[in-house]
Amino acid sequence: MKSALIFTLLACGACWGQTAGECKPSSLNIPGAPYPCVYPDNRVAFRVAAPDAQKVQVRLGGVHDMTRGADGLWTVTIPPQVVGFHYYSLVVDGGVMADPATRTFFGSGWDNSGIEIPAPDADFYAAKEVPHGEVSERWYFSKVTANWRRCFVYTPPNYLANPQTRYPVLYLLHGWGENEQGWSTQGHVEFIMDNLIAANKAKPMIIVMDNLNAVKPGEDDGLYTARSIIARRSPADVPPPLGTRPPAGRNRPMFPANWGETFTEMMFTDLIPMAEHTYRVLTGRENRAMAGLSMGGAQTFKTGLQHLDKFAYLGGFSGSCAGRDTAFDPKTSCGGTFADPAAFNKDVKLLFLGIGSAEGPGTKNFSEALTKAGIHNVYFESPGTAHEWLTWRRCLYDFAPRLFR
Amino acid sequence: MKSALIFTLLACGACWGQTAGECKPSSLNIPGAPYPCVYPDNRVAFRVAAPDAQKVQVRLGGVHDMTRGADGLWTVTIPPQVVGFHYYSLVVDGGVMADPATRTFFGSGWDNSGIEIPAPDADFYAAKEVPHGEVSERWYFSKVTANWRRCFVYTPPNYLANPQTRYPVLYLLHGWGENEQGWSTQGHVEFIMDNLIAANKAKPMIIVMDNLNAVKPGEDDGLYTARSIIARRSPADVPPPLGTRPPAGRNRPMFPANWGETFTEMMFTDLIPMAEHTYRVLTGRENRAMAGLSMGGAQTFKTGLQHLDKFAYLGGFSGSCAGRDTAFDPKTSCGGTFADPAAFNKDVKLLFLGIGSAEGPGTKNFSEALTKAGIHNVYFESPGTAHEWLTWRRCLYDFAPRLFR
Repeated sequence: MKSALIFTLLACGACWGQTAGECKPSSLNIPGAPYPCVYPDNRVAFRVAAPDAQKVQVRLGGVHDMTRGADGLWTVTIPPQVVGFHYYSLVVDGGVMADPATRTFFGSGWDNSGIEIPAPDADFYAAKEVPHGEVSERWYFSKVTANWRRCFVYTPPNYLANPQTRYPVLYLLHGWGENEQGWSTQGHVEFIMDNLIAANKAKPMIIVMDNLNAVKPGEDDGLYTARSIIARRSPADVPPPLGTRPPAGRNRPMFPANWGETFTEMMFTDLIPMAEHTYRVLTGRENRAMAGLSMGGAQTFKTGLQHLDKFAYLGGFSGSCAGRDTAFDPKTSCGGTFADPAAFNKDVKLLFLGIGSAEGPGTKNFSEALTKAGIHNVYFESPGTAHEWLTWRRCLYDFAPRLFR
Repeated sequence: MKSALIFTLLACGACWGQTAGECKPSSLNIPGAPYPCVYPDNRVAFRVAAPDAQKVQVRLGGVHDMTRGADGLWTVTIPPQVVGFHYYSLVVDGGVMADPATRTFFGSGWDNSGIEIPAPDADFYAAKEVPHGEVSERWYFSKVTANWRRCFVYTPPNYLANPQTRYPVLYLLHGWGENEQGWSTQGHVEFIMDNLIAANKAKPMIIVMDNLNAVKPGEDDGLYTARSIIARRSPADVPPPLGTRPPAGRNRPMFPANWGETFTEMMFTDLIPMAEHTYRVLTGRENRAMAGLSMGGAQTFKTGLQHLDKFAYLGGFSGSCAGRDTAFDPKTSCGGTFADPAAFNKDVKLLFLGIGSAEGPGTKNFSEALTKAGIHNVYFESPGTAHEWLTWRRCLYDFAPRLFR
């Protein structure tokens, strides 16, 4: 049996339509939906009902034409996908839509479909028979942005049962086009932390997950939203893959000079005071960490490096203060924070740089340049993954045990 | 100005395409999306990009054909809609899809689009400058269903600040095709409760919101999911409106004889013990209420009436133990619970029946039959609304102040 399967796989490099084992519905499908369906070799079969359509495609790791059957159902089986969570969408006669057969996930500024390709290390973010913390939805009014904002707050197991205990805090941010729900919904932050804490690998901590989109009344929030993409929907107007810049000429620059400053102001004026008033947190820089993924990593370095009096632990997951292509000069880059390595190393107990191995060498180069300049830092690489959530789940799993030591 | 607007409205009964005031993007749109756009008279304009489609429709209070413009964008303005929250969907060349321009909401077993038509009484479920509680995501393992389940738990303002205080508990259920997130996302349970508690109109309480779908390994969950609808997608295979039965012959009966029994068992074996272990709750029947909407109202009456030793307060919002069309006999209906009015009235401190005025006279008739039989009950009618979330928000707003008195 086993050798027959291997033979099938070897002999059949291009015939994705054939079966090699049975597929299983993705864990993110709506209840009872048989498709998308993931094969043991990580090929994925899709099925969509659009009986009168001319052309239906799946956008996942490329664009895949579907084939219409006599029953009006469109199907396609696509090549093996990388393990982990992927956003994807359908294109139905030129219209970009979510697949109605999956739960939706907020990314690239809208609720697109999601699929989970089982990862060999999925155990670290699975619900297990260990004490569980909880993720709470918390609304607060921001004086800086003059509106009600929502954040999610992870409190560790037994937070409610130990009303005298205080905990250190990690402020944890999502990426461009996502929101404050990303880390719990796509990231499984609570299971990662519950499992780490149960194994005594991470200290119990509070994690505050806020929304990067912070603008004052009248300020332009085009940087954070998909406004121009949605407002001008046209055949060319499909949301760009996460982490890429919108096409030139159609949008303002993705990172204007003053980006992130309102978030920083809001964080110190509204978010941190609210968190420290509402939850039993330990205060002071040695009990405060900040991290984020992609644009949230850039925000972390922007806020954190300018306020080392506030944070002793910083993490950038696929995002930091280093440009992807520019040379790093420790004397001047990143606002000159790294000019005095001895002082920096004394202040900063952890500078963490994580990346997916498929994201290119920029972060590794940055880490090596920092090391060469005498700046202590931790480099973590997620094997085989790109600018996606499995990279960031793994980053958190490596990062959290290093905090508050 | 005002008289000109009135004249326009009067003179223009059928010309929905014309403007009467400017439209505003629905509050449920994704950030920056200008459509769907709601006019002051509650007409709604939609816009969808599907440049190569043959036919695009909006399904909201009927099916509305859209018109393709030269730019490949499809548009339609539909007649005034009832105020409140509505699920809706698009049909793109026969495929039922969510509108990519709105956030999605889990109803009828999938993530469809949502729109909010501003209601004149929207203030009672708005975020206001009052102390806020929080809604927490809580995972627990169920021995009865042998899997991890998720519920959401509202804890009132100052729950964390008053670690000695205990609170009564309301168990609150969603409807068919929805899930444990419905009451916080579509229902705004936290703002309703925060506002009531701040005005001293309701007692501070904990609200546990679980998922109706509880089956043992091997049990059929077709009752709760949209399995057959999604599995067999075809032109006729569109999700039915919430609260209607699936078309005959295509699905099993919606309410088999033993429906709801596993939920009841799970509730007493797993959910209530977890809640009473994890949160600071007051125990005993006089500190325990149960309510639900639609199928959740039916579950409430199924569970509650058989266990009056466990609950002193029961609420059915557009759902109870009474069939819609069958005659009510107090001696035998609803398992004979109402056969001894004096005993029932002594036990049950509140029997609440809520309904939307557009849902037909069944609930009112049931309430009157109960009253005639000597059973104390409260009848609440939401003016102008149907089997939708504004009805249930209003039900909760009327119901919660009556609890634990």
